[in-house]
Amino acid sequence: MTSSTLLFSPVETDLQLLTDNLKQLVGARHPILYAAAEHLFSVHGKRVRPAIVLLISRTTMPNQEITPKHRRLAEITEMIHTASLVHDDVVDESELRRGSPTVHSLFNNRIAVLAGDFLFAQSSWYLANLDNLEVVKLLSKVIMDLAEGEIQQGLNRFDTGMSINAYLEKSYYKTASLVANSSKAAGLLSGVSAELAEDLYSYGQNLGLAFQIVDDILDFTGSTETLGKPAASDLKSGNLTAPTLYTLEETPYLETLIEREFAQEGDLEQAITLIKESSAIERSRELAAYHAKLAVEHISKFPDCDSRKALIELSDYVLSRLY
Amino acid sequence: MTSSTLLFSPVETDLQLLTDNLKQLVGARHPILYAAAEHLFSVHGKRVRPAIVLLISRTTMPNQEITPKHRRLAEITEMIHTASLVHDDVVDESELRRGSPTVHSLFNNRIAVLAGDFLFAQSSWYLANLDNLEVVKLLSKVIMDLAEGEIQQGLNRFDTGMSINAYLEKSYYKTASLVANSSKAAGLLSGVSAELAEDLYSYGQNLGLAFQIVDDILDFTGSTETLGKPAASDLKSGNLTAPTLYTLEETPYLETLIEREFAQEGDLEQAITLIKESSAIERSRELAAYHAKLAVEHISKFPDCDSRKALIELSDYVLSRLY
Repeated sequence: MTSSTLLFSPVETDLQLLTDNLKQLVGARHPILYAAAEHLFSVHGKRVRPAIVLLISRTTMPNQEITPKHRRLAEITEMIHTASLVHDDVVDESELRRGSPTVHSLFNNRIAVLAGDFLFAQSSWYLANLDNLEVVKLLSKVIMDLAEGEIQQGLNRFDTGMSINAYLEKSYYKTASLVANSSKAAGLLSGVSAELAEDLYSYGQNLGLAFQIVDDILDFTGSTETLGKPAASDLKSGNLTAPTLYTLEETPYLETLIEREFAQEGDLEQAITLIKESSAIERSRELAAYHAKLAVEHISKFPDCDSRKALIELSDYVLSRLY
Repeated sequence: MTSSTLLFSPVETDLQLLTDNLKQLVGARHPILYAAAEHLFSVHGKRVRPAIVLLISRTTMPNQEITPKHRRLAEITEMIHTASLVHDDVVDESELRRGSPTVHSLFNNRIAVLAGDFLFAQSSWYLANLDNLEVVKLLSKVIMDLAEGEIQQGLNRFDTGMSINAYLEKSYYKTASLVANSSKAAGLLSGVSAELAEDLYSYGQNLGLAFQIVDDILDFTGSTETLGKPAASDLKSGNLTAPTLYTLEETPYLETLIEREFAQEGDLEQAITLIKESSAIERSRELAAYHAKLAVEHISKFPDCDSRKALIELSDYVLSRLY
């Protein structure tokens, strides 16, 4: 398995700078948040979202240095993502994320709500100071979509009537909106045409969807160690994803297990077996591959360079996580 | 005691429309938030902040109807305020606000965090769509300041070394920033000069400070029934306000009680007696009156009309709450 870190080599220095800035920003001013900041920006160390923003910035500024605004956009992207993770963990009462204790379990709800609010507030403020109304609108929409996604996920728990389209919509809100809108925003800061800006949006949207679908497959096929949380924890909490929805089409009995919310001994284990034995994992993989391929088509319209290469490899990498 | 509702008669119809819109906005789309929205926008029914925005809008558009953007700004102001209240109640673990159960005690932390995030997100989105970068910056600053205020309040608990200036700064973050920046923003939407925009800012800033100081006095002089929460609950939780800080200047023994966090039987009652028997309540009242007077000076620069009259009366009303 390729490490995502290697893929990001064209922007490795940029990412180091970004991590230092983020820790500084949140931690230095507020001792109360210092520990939370250290924890947040070290643990969630993959920095996929700002890496995409930086790679797109470099792809769309082929012969020039990227600007401070591009860097600030990458920081904003990571701040919004982190803020939403911290609040999601309070809402979902999660104890672990990627194998590390969550902020609200390590500190408490009080610090977690404050830290999330502070990050959202700081990102709104930085956003306004990019002095670009279109970019402000794109990223404000992301903040709306994240709230919408979290609410929809709450509403649709254990809803076996959910369609694959509703699942994709939820995944868009939760994951793809941020990647799509920040990719487009990076292009706008570089001054690309409206048409190319849409290609960047579509790249981010499809990559984000592929990423979420693969995550949802790994929830079934991964081990507790690689996931950093118990397997099938989405299913257990009633968050139905592609593998479950496809299985429901071919194995109606799964509906019974889900609708009684796995109340009887062995229900959850039986559901997991049904899903793994069906063709649902393969169909989900095909769905992810379809979106990854679309992502590549859109980014291929840009001139070749190291950063564009990395963006293309990233969509292969997303799928490679399954093997 | 004059009712604040009477003061708002020039914008009564506007406020009714605003309340309906806000309930609709939050409740209609999300059954999960419907009950919370009904609860929030009915209970916190004083709508002082949007009333100020609407009165300033009418004062600065003397011979014309106010625009949909003015109305939207008033809604944004109330949404930001409500979002911060909901999260404050989670952070402070408050059970009551104005005599009614808080969202997190009536529903749970999950709904309270979601509802607050949704309101902040929606306000960012509406804000961006006002299509005015300067207004976006002013209101983003407010969101920052609210987060900053909540953090500072946490940091300064039981800090008997806090100065009156630090108290005023905290009060600015918590209360006055929203009134100051939204007042200025209303003027900018009406196209007032940069100089008059600063007068609107100063009106809101001073009125907001007067309002907070009076609230802090009432925490000692009001009854549980009028406050809707136990008296001296700020002091008990270590949130030191003007009456406490002034008393510390003349009665050093209060320091001992506060620094041991009222650990011994009767400590809190003794502290309350010391504060009420000192000149601190009167000095705090004078501080509030000073800021109320400054507010009037700044708004008096605008042409006379019913709405301006209401804005002036509002600063008298703030002080009248003490009698």
